[in-house]
Order: sequence, then structure tokens, then C-alpha cells
Amino acid sequence: MPIITQKFGGTSVADAEKIRQAAARVIETMKNGYQVVVVASARGKQTDQLIADALELNPNPPKREMDQLLSTGEQQTVSLFAMALDAMGCDAISFTGGQIRLMTDSAHTQAKIKSIDAERIHKQLDQGKIVIVAGFQGIDEYGNITTLGRGGSDTSAVALAAALGAEQCEIYTDVDGIYTTDPRIFKDAVKLGQISYDEMLEMASLGAGVMHIRAVGFGKKYDVKIHVRNSAKEIEGTVITHEVPQMEGVVVSGATIQKEMAKIGLVGVANVPGNAAKVFARLAKAKVVVNDIIQTEISPEKANLSFMVGISDSTAAKEAVEEIKDELGRDDIFIREDIAEISVVGVGMRTHYGVAERMFGALAEANINIDSITTSEIRISCVVDKDQAEKALEAVCVAFELDKPPGERAKAD
Amino acid sequence: MPIITQKFGGTSVADAEKIRQAAARVIETMKNGYQVVVVASARGKQTDQLIADALELNPNPPKREMDQLLSTGEQQTVSLFAMALDAMGCDAISFTGGQIRLMTDSAHTQAKIKSIDAERIHKQLDQGKIVIVAGFQGIDEYGNITTLGRGGSDTSAVALAAALGAEQCEIYTDVDGIYTTDPRIFKDAVKLGQISYDEMLEMASLGAGVMHIRAVGFGKKYDVKIHVRNSAKEIEGTVITHEVPQMEGVVVSGATIQKEMAKIGLVGVANVPGNAAKVFARLAKAKVVVNDIIQTEISPEKANLSFMVGISDSTAAKEAVEEIKDELGRDDIFIREDIAEISVVGVGMRTHYGVAERMFGALAEANINIDSITTSEIRISCVVDKDQAEKALEAVCVAFELDKPPGERAKAD
Repeated sequence: MPIITQKFGGTSVADAEKIRQAAARVIETMKNGYQVVVVASARGKQTDQLIADALELNPNPPKREMDQLLSTGEQQTVSLFAMALDAMGCDAISFTGGQIRLMTDSAHTQAKIKSIDAERIHKQLDQGKIVIVAGFQGIDEYGNITTLGRGGSDTSAVALAAALGAEQCEIYTDVDGIYTTDPRIFKDAVKLGQISYDEMLEMASLGAGVMHIRAVGFGKKYDVKIHVRNSAKEIEGTVITHEVPQMEGVVVSGATIQKEMAKIGLVGVANVPGNAAKVFARLAKAKVVVNDIIQTEISPEKANLSFMVGISDSTAAKEAVEEIKDELGRDDIFIREDIAEISVVGVGMRTHYGVAERMFGALAEANINIDSITTSEIRISCVVDKDQAEKALEAVCVAFELDKPPGERAKAD
Repeated sequence: MPIITQKFGGTSVADAEKIRQAAARVIETMKNGYQVVVVASARGKQTDQLIADALELNPNPPKREMDQLLSTGEQQTVSLFAMALDAMGCDAISFTGGQIRLMTDSAHTQAKIKSIDAERIHKQLDQGKIVIVAGFQGIDEYGNITTLGRGGSDTSAVALAAALGAEQCEIYTDVDGIYTTDPRIFKDAVKLGQISYDEMLEMASLGAGVMHIRAVGFGKKYDVKIHVRNSAKEIEGTVITHEVPQMEGVVVSGATIQKEMAKIGLVGVANVPGNAAKVFARLAKAKVVVNDIIQTEISPEKANLSFMVGISDSTAAKEAVEEIKDELGRDDIFIREDIAEISVVGVGMRTHYGVAERMFGALAEANINIDSITTSEIRISCVVDKDQAEKALEAVCVAFELDKPPGERAKAD
């Protein structure tokens, strides 16, 4: 019998009524001829409450204990979920990460999955049971409870689907799927029927919040079909899958906007070997995550170096750079927090010309100045003034017809 | 270095401030030269909340899932406790029942402890850490989480003390120790410095709520010195220990009152082999716990049979007996809920005369009628009218000088 894993996030299991709704969907799937493995997150605001409880006792709680604490949220949900299924006449059994031997490394609060004991789950499924697994958690080789970090339940669900050879991994959430862009900003955004792992990875890393990047990466690695769906509706969502030939016909699948960021610039850094390494070593020490590094020579001896950081890291980044300013021989350091980044993403860029031109043209026509540009193989990003960001996104969306499903757009070159 | 286990109940860890207080006590014990293993219960009303969450989804939740759910309460406490110790500069590590391989049978919600992996704990203690263990829980041989039933954290603490060869097991609670009787009823009751396991077992089974009977039984079996203390005060409590010669000098250690009970009587049961067995088999099937069975012959062919049940079981007990009344050939069934039982307990009864006489005399002098009497080797119980129960307890307490510490009482015969 084919297997489906279904992941329900915190809002989809927030209270008894929501759990019953989720359970009803699981039962329906089973009736359609599937063995079902459910992966559930902590209910609603439970995790936030536990974090608050911890911080009240210790502003810097040991990570091992944090994992021991937070993992209870998911454990509560799965046992309650199993009880709901039992009340609805279904045989169900819940498991913690440890109970299915979801083994991870020992990197508490951001552990990486090493293996899963699929046998214990298969055995229960073959007895006709629905299996409910606590997301977000595993154990290390010493039996310590670990957690997988942000988006960890998505990762658990995809990893389980891979380990069990599931037909697909359904991620239930409170939106209908993946949109061409954020519908709260560009109201004509349309839902995508499918998207490739690579596109989703770019969009996830650019802050399109639906799926976590690690889960998508796992899906790509093990070729797990991921179906992002709305838990409150009976409609198809977006399938994240490996690249198929027809995807290449679509130049741009989606556009993203990132506003919570800052740009740090070092003007006139002495252009000698090792200077860039010094900067980023110091930033890594300060645990600042850096994106979009740009270096350009301004004279034979000097270069400008800039990079982007999350806005919450901007002070730490500035301080880190200030500390080593004399070693770099630079002229000036600046920080800009009044910026935003607009990106377009699409595997079709690999085979189509004129994408950059179309994007820059749209921004020019809307009279928006581009501060800087970075690109990857399937992405083009432009930094613009923050107060023009939404206008910029809209201009780009219109230019790439992101208000239409890919099939209905004008043919690209 | 000697080891002490310290158990903190739900009220002693109810909030951050209480956890810090408990942690401070643990640190003090460590500074006095002990290795400390803490056993903690779920915080305050957490367990009640989880039970309510479960019942909202399923009026009769599967017991395995109930254990999976409820065990999270203790897991939360121990991780928070470890964080508090860390914040106070102490190295601490928390463990679930499963992590220290506290193995039980598979009787979910009332599992029995089979073994504990003391090595893992010793290893941590020898590294200078304080070890915090989740009470009330274990795992069975299949890795399912089990719970030990009411008073389970006390049992965990005593079992750990036995497994670790601890010098003593301290049970922290919100009373000063074990009293000669309930001070809310007999205001002159005094705290006992020590009490034997057997006396405590009788008092626990008679409803003196401080310690659970299973924990005391475990303490007796493995000769663990149990010290019941007030978590909010720096005073000695009551030590529950094996019998020492001087205890025999004390005729009566304590008196108890049980009001939440009912008496079921079967009048004129045919006095043929197997009739009593039929009655109690039927009651066991109805899961009614029965105490104080009395049978007396009233004619060569007939006997009266009576027994006590908890008041919450009285309807179920009556129904069970009604069902088989024709088979028994009995004349009548009665149920009395307007009764209470007064008991005195003391290992000294084994060697002293006149205890029964003194008790019955005290009740007679107070003009209280005795409905029925049962005894064990170290206990005498009298059933009286419920509205006379408190007066009866007081009369008995005065007769046995339970307002004085054992050493200050008049010498017994």
C-alpha cells in the first residue's frame, strides 16, 4: 500500500477542534488507500510559552536542556492527535523522535538528521495503524534529545517520507500553497501548481516563509515530492518536485521581497590578499549570517566591499567590522537599513535571454534606482530603497506576468 | 561521596520562583558534601491541564497515549530545573525516565519499576553534576513511555535512592512532616520525628495523604531512609525508617480518619462455599477496591457479609452486588454512606496490652457508638457515624496522648 506523510504545523493543531479537523483529513487519506504517517508540531503558542518559561529562569539556557524542554510540545501534540484518532474509531500510535530512533548529530537546537528506524513505523502501518510522529526532534547517539531548528517539523516530515519511501509528503499550513509572490503585497499573485526544488530553495532563502530551506534541501536530496496544502481547504496546493522539462519554459516562477535587512559597506579597503577573509572570519565569530557579498575594485590599491545581513544582526555586524577597521586600512564604513531586496527566481533563466534586461527595465520604467545587483544561476536580486520596495516588486511582477499561471503567459524567447 | 535524592512535588516547582528556591536547597545540600539527584514532578496544575486537554478529545483516551502525554509535564520541570541550576552557577543535567533506563512493566498509567540504570547517573555525579530526573515515568521494554500512577514521583525518588545506594531520600512537600493525626481536625497533633515503614504503610493506606503507599513499600523493601520535609522551611521533618527497638515503647504512633467511604452489607447470605468469592470476583470485575471485609455467621445456614469501599465506588459496588443477589440467596443488601472510620496505628501494639480497650473506652466515654471493628497486627479501626467522626478522632487522640511527642507520654503497660 502506498504511504503518505502529512505534516501539520502549530496553527493546524492549535486546539481540540483543529486537531479533530486534521485527524479527519488523515482518516480520509487512509480511506483513499494510503498508509498515513502524520508529523505534528507543537500546538499554537506552546513553544513560545516554553521559551518564555526557560528565559525566566536563565537568560542563556544550556542548549541540551532547551531541547529537552521544547521537545515536549510536539510530544503533547502527537499523543493528543492519537487520542483524537482513537475517538474517531481509528487505531493510532504516537512516537517521539527517540522512539522511532530518528538519530541526529549532537548539535543541540540545530541538529542534523543522520538516520531513521523505518522498520518500527512500517510494522505499525502494516498492523493497520496510523502513525503519529513528533516533528522537530530526534536523539543523538547518547540518548540526548535534540531539535532540528526552525522549520524542523517540515524537515522531519520530508526525512520520514524519504526513509519510508512515501509517495509524497504533504505539508499542511494556513496558506493555499506557494504563490508567484507575496499576495499581501501584490494582490494579483497566483498560486503555482508546481515548482522545482532549486527554485523553492532560492525563494525559501529569500524569505518566502512557507517552507523551510532545510526541508526543501532534504526533499531535493532524496527526491521527495512535497505537496504544500491548506489544512482548512479541500484544494490542491503546490507540488515541489524535481525539475521537469516543461519548467524550463517558464522564465520566472516567482518574485520575492526582503525588507528586514541591512547593507554594510566598507569603502576603500586596502586591496591585499586576506582582507576579505579577515572581515568574514570576524563576522562568523559574531555569529552574523551574511548574504550577497559584493567586492569591486575602485583603484589598483583599494576596493569597496559590501554585504547584506538580517536587520537584527546589523548592530553586531557593524561592531564586528569596526573592531578590525584599522587592520583593513579602509576609508569608511557605512550601514544602510533603509533598503530592501527584490528578487526573481526561475530555472528557465538558464535557457532564456533577456531576463536581467526585463527586470532592470521594469524598475527603470517605474523610476526606481537600483543600489546594487547580485545574481545566481536561477536568481536575480536588486537592492532598492525600502520605501520604493513594494512599488518595485509590483513592477517586476507585472513585467514577468506573475499575475498569470505560467501556462497563460506570453511565450518567452 | 554520599548521595542524597531529593524529590520536589508539583507545588514545590509550581513557578520560576519556587524552582529557584528548590534549586537553592539542592546547591546547599551539595555544598554540605553530597552528590545530589533531584526527582521532580510536573509543575503545579500542568498535569490537570493535560488531562483536561486529553478528555476534550477523547473521553476514554488510550492509556499508552495518556502516558506519552502526561510524561511531558515532568520532562518540562526537569529541564527548567537544570536551567535554573545552570543560572546559579551549577553544572546540571536533566534526564527523562527513558534516558536513565528506568524500566517498568507495560501496565500504562500504573506501571511497576523493574530496574534503573544507575551507571549513567553515577557517571554524571562523578563529573560533579547535579542530576535531575523526571519523576512518575519510565519506559517499557519496547520503548513506550509508562507512568507509575498516583504518587509516582515519590516512588521514582525512593527507587532511585535504592538503585544509587543513597544515604537518604528526601521528600519535599508543603507540610512539615508526618503528624500523629490530621492537624486540621485535631489541632494539638504533633509532628513525629520518625515512624516505621509498617506504620506509615497503614497510615498511608488509611488516607494520610503525605506519602504514597507504593513509595513507602519500596522504601521498606530496599531499606531506604525516607525524610519527609517542608520545602519552604529549614527544619527537620519526619524520617520513615525500618523499625528500631525504641519504637516498640510507643503504643500508638498516629490516628487517622477516613470519611470518603461507604459500607455495603449483605444480610443473610447463604453460607455455602464460594459465595464470598463470587461477590468479590464481581466487584473486581467492576474495578471496585474493597477494604475491611467482615463476615459473621448469623445461623448455621446464613451469614452477614459487609465491606467498605471508597464513596466514589459505592454506586458501582451496589450495582455489582445487586446483579448477583439471587445467586447468593441473601435476604437484603444495604449501603451506608453516613459513616467514617477512625483508626489508631502503632508497632507498639504488638507488645502492649489494652490498646483496643483504651480505644473503645475513649469512644464509649464520648458517647459514640461503634458500628464495626477491624484490626491488623498494628492497627485498630472503628466505623462510627460520620457526624460523630471528628469528635471520635479527638477522643481517641486524647486517650493515646497524640498531642504529645512519643517520648513525653505516660508509660504504657
